[in-house]
This record gives sequence, C-alpha cells and structure tokens, in this order.
Amino acid sequence: MEKNIEQKGRQSLAFHTPPYIMASASVVGKKEGEGPLGNLFDMVGEDPMFGCESWEDAEGTLQKEALTLAIGKSEIEKWQIRYIFAGDLLGQEMASSFGLADMQIPLFGVYGACSTAGESISLASLSVASGAADYVMAVTSSHFASAEKQFRFPLAYGNQRPPSSTWTVTGSGAFVIGKDKGIAKVKGITTGKIVDYGIKDSMNMGACMAPAACDTIYNHFMDFECDEKEYDQIITGDLGEVGYEILIELMKDKGYDISKKLLDCGMMIFDKETQGTNAGGSGCGCSATVLSALILKNIKEGKWKKVLFVPTGALLSPVSHNEGLSVPSIAHGVVLEG
Amino acid sequence: MEKNIEQKGRQSLAFHTPPYIMASASVVGKKEGEGPLGNLFDMVGEDPMFGCESWEDAEGTLQKEALTLAIGKSEIEKWQIRYIFAGDLLGQEMASSFGLADMQIPLFGVYGACSTAGESISLASLSVASGAADYVMAVTSSHFASAEKQFRFPLAYGNQRPPSSTWTVTGSGAFVIGKDKGIAKVKGITTGKIVDYGIKDSMNMGACMAPAACDTIYNHFMDFECDEKEYDQIITGDLGEVGYEILIELMKDKGYDISKKLLDCGMMIFDKETQGTNAGGSGCGCSATVLSALILKNIKEGKWKKVLFVPTGALLSPVSHNEGLSVPSIAHGVVLEG
Repeated sequence: MEKNIEQKGRQSLAFHTPPYIMASASVVGKKEGEGPLGNLFDMVGEDPMFGCESWEDAEGTLQKEALTLAIGKSEIEKWQIRYIFAGDLLGQEMASSFGLADMQIPLFGVYGACSTAGESISLASLSVASGAADYVMAVTSSHFASAEKQFRFPLAYGNQRPPSSTWTVTGSGAFVIGKDKGIAKVKGITTGKIVDYGIKDSMNMGACMAPAACDTIYNHFMDFECDEKEYDQIITGDLGEVGYEILIELMKDKGYDISKKLLDCGMMIFDKETQGTNAGGSGCGCSATVLSALILKNIKEGKWKKVLFVPTGALLSPVSHNEGLSVPSIAHGVVLEG
Repeated sequence: MEKNIEQKGRQSLAFHTPPYIMASASVVGKKEGEGPLGNLFDMVGEDPMFGCESWEDAEGTLQKEALTLAIGKSEIEKWQIRYIFAGDLLGQEMASSFGLADMQIPLFGVYGACSTAGESISLASLSVASGAADYVMAVTSSHFASAEKQFRFPLAYGNQRPPSSTWTVTGSGAFVIGKDKGIAKVKGITTGKIVDYGIKDSMNMGACMAPAACDTIYNHFMDFECDEKEYDQIITGDLGEVGYEILIELMKDKGYDISKKLLDCGMMIFDKETQGTNAGGSGCGCSATVLSALILKNIKEGKWKKVLFVPTGALLSPVSHNEGLSVPSIAHGVVLEG
C-alpha cells in the first residue's frame, strides 16, 4: 500500500489521497466590504465592534461567526469536527482563546503571525491525510483596531502612516477540511523556516516578509521539482506593493520569473486609490478571507486549476519592536487544486 | 494493513507503532537549580540573563540551548530534524521566534499557554506517526522575569504575591521525537477543549486550570476505556497546591479517585518552605523541564512504566486580565510508556 503522505525534499509533503477544503466562510468589516472584493465575502459587519464591548471580543466574534458559517455551508455537523487549528495576532492569541471557547471542540492553538492561515490549513490537512481526523477546521482572524492597539498607536491618536505601511484587515476566514470531496484538494504543503534579513522597520513589513516568501517558494520548487509554470497563480498573503516587487526580484536572482503568476491578497482586498490603505491589506484575516472569498471561488469555477497559496507572517511583537530588534518572518505554502 | 493512527472516542488518538521520545534536555535558572530537582537538570544557568541583554532574549537562548543539548544527546544530526513545534508564553511567541531563527528548520509555532509542552509533543508525535517526518522536535520555555514583565509587574516594583499564586519557572525543555527506539513511547494523545468556569483571579491559576485538567483526564478515561489504575502516575503541568486539590475533588465528582496517582510538576520543582514559591511553579518551562529531567528519567529507569502527562494552560493575556475577563484554560494529555 502506498503511503498517503510522502515527504518531498527538505520542507514539503505531498498528499496522495488529498484532503479537501470542503467548505469555507469569510466575515469582514465595513471597509473590506467596500473594497474590490466586497461582494464576494459571506458577511460584512457594519459595526466594527460586531456588537461587542472591546476590539478583542469583536475579533473573537469574527472567528466564531466565520466558523459557524463555514460549518453551515458544509454537509457535516459541528459534532463531527474533531479538531480546530486556530490562531491570531493578539498576545496569547486572545481572539481564538475567547472566541472559540463555546465551540467545545479540541483545539490546537497555532501561531505564525499573518502566515497563520497557511500553518493552520497545513496542520489541518496533515491531520486528515494521516487519518487522525475525518473533519477538522482551520480558522484565523485579525481586526484593524485590536491590531493597532496591540502593535502601534491608539486609534484616537491619529498617527501618520508611511506609504510602505499596510492596513490590517478586519476579518476572519474559516475552512472545513476533510476526507469528502469539496471545493479544492490540498495536494501538498511546504512549511517555512524563519528568515531574518535584519530589517527593523515595522512600517515596511512587506520588505521583512518577502525573503521568507522567496525561501518557501524556492524550496517548494526544489522539493516538488517544478517551477512557476506548474501553477495558474502563486498567491502570497500580505506582502503589499513593496514586498511584492521585492519578492519578484529575489526570485529572479534565483532564476525564476514569477512576475506573471504572482498575486498578493493584500493588494487585492483594498483599492489603495480610494481607500487610503497605502501598500495594501495585512493581518491573518487578509489571506484567510481572500482565500475563502476569491481563490476558492475561482478554483471552484474552474478559472484557476492549481494555485500555490503562500501566506506570509512577520513574527514581530510590540516588545521586540520597542527593543529595536529586527522582524523575523515566515511563510507557509499550500498547494490547492480544483 | 492496520492503520497506525487510530481515532479513539471524541478527543484521543492511539499510535499503534508509536513514535519515541528519543532524547530530551532541560535548561533552567538558578532558583530551579536550587530546588528539589536541581541535580537532575542538564544545565543550570547562574546568570538569569543567560548572557543576553533582555529577558526575552534570555528566554530565547534557553530554547536554543535546550534544543542543541537534546540533539547532542540523540543519535541524529540537526539536518535530520524535519520540523520544530515550538511555543512560549510571550506575546507573539517572541522567545521562539527570536530564539529559533538560527536553527533554519521548518517551524510550526504553537500556543497553548503552559500546556504548550503537551500540545507540541502531541503534534510532533502525530507528524512522526503519520510518516510526515522521521525526526522532529518539540520545545517550549518560560522565564520568570519575562513572564512577570508580560503579565504582572516590573520586578523592581516588588509586588506581594498571594498564597495561591505560582512562580513562573525559568527553563526550557526540548524533545527529539522520532521513529527510532528511545526513552519512552508516545502511545497516544488526548487533545483538550477550552474550559472556562468563569474564574477571574489570575493569582489563582490553579483553580482556573483544574477544570480543564479534569475535562481532559475524564475524556481520556472515556476514550481509552480505562481509569487511573492504567497509570503509574498521572502528572499535571502546573496546577500547584490549590489546583491539585480542586482537581482531585472534581475527579471524585466524576467517580474517579486519582489522589494516589496524581503528581504535579509545579509542586515538585520548588520547595515552597524554603524557596518562597507559594502554590508552586508554573509556565511552559515547568512541565517541559520536569518531563525531561524527572519523568523521562523515571520511565527510563523502569520506576514508572506508564504515565499520563497532562500539561495545563491558562489562556489569559494581559489585555484580557485588564478587561476583567475570566481565565479560559486547556490541558493536553500525552500517554508515555517505557
């Protein structure tokens, strides 16, 4: 009997009987609803507090809503979900810990900053491919206001934002992953290493994360003995305009021209001309909501057959920033096929 | 062919060809070195800064040292390690992100507060049992000073500590888990759900976590159709004296008397009479270092044949504490056999 999980190269796994993303849901804030993808999201909240009394509670509610919606769109019941793999940007993963407590489902908390969608889908897929579970969920979130409070300035301070800065997406994406046929197969994963080029500018996270994205995509090509021609699209999480250009250059240095294949969730979710979002959207919720609303839709409709999804994470903290440290980064690749 | 990974009940997995903890290492601070287990740790640092310039950097160094020591005690080389599963208590997992960057090994960041040793060993074991990896590592840490800075008061403030409070362990435990024979088999896991009894006193985390430990142990008994007689010891992570008594009572309510089998890492690592540590030790590093130094030693020497290891985590954050919220908790069970 062929083993279902095959180790490929140094960083990758191939799933021969692949798990499926069976259903997904996205819940976003008002600004995301007004952006170019606005009519694709499942739910747009007009109230940034989502009926709660704190930003953190609002973000937890986003996760709960996205999870509930995704289960509702699937053909399984909540009690069939064996594990949730969840994480967020807040210290001690407050949105997940408080948002998911009511679910009463075994929980693996994960942390990969804005790459968390990639990490959670990777581990969820591994658990299904291995037979450890029939159905699991991956969920992640971010909220503009809870992130600004955590990492930058109180909203009322009205700080200026340089052109290289990104705008944290208010949103949550949730995914039911299981053994039954669904929207897209998870054919394989490439797990990232921490990459740190020593860049210290937390207002230019695209530049910090581009080397990590390059490392993961390059190693993915090595491990699977393929190149950009294998994919209809390669889609990073939240590099934004600055990181996007850097990634193309870094890949060129390695001998690959991905410029015609590369999209970035952060550049698609907002209209920078009219929405004042500078380099683009960011946050765990950015890649997760765009995956649910746009990428999986295009795969389902046959527009894209095979996509390399590469959420990117900047592993900084308010403390590391205040201590003047660099911004180590990581990116996790997931191969999606229709 | 029998499947290697068997789903047991609602929350557990059994591994028929079990992964092994092949090697482990513990690095602790001076106070832990002066405690009852002092001569069992692999390395005791006399300098609480571990030669670094910040508490966070010191904690990252603990992880790096423990990892390096554990690899050195195993018969494999660093390049054979396919994944690291790592996490810590600091916001955005700063100790792991900065401490492990140099390792250049694919990383899955995990978060389960002080239950992280259980979560990381669970996922590491799953990855080996599934064939996704031959050798992986699980590592976690805590540091008294970085935790006090993060969650409570600056050290220089000299705040008073109630008798129910615990003392965050300065230490890191690292584990090489793989397919080759070693110290202990990981026979199965029971993954915890979030349990929240509404307790809001972060100076009494044992009381917050005891219901989560009870839930995991009870479901473990259900899933494996066993009871406390199956184990030489059931060992929780960092309940401390208060949580220890509560757990015994909660299990009695469910019809199980675990009082003769129950140990708690937090109660073993310090001598409360002479070390002023009140209810006991806590932190991710508490259960991880005691597992490496004491539990695995006793299993190796045949003193204990089968142990249920149940690290416990209080999923609070400084923000949730300041917002007056309760302390949701989680506990992850790991079955260890000689």
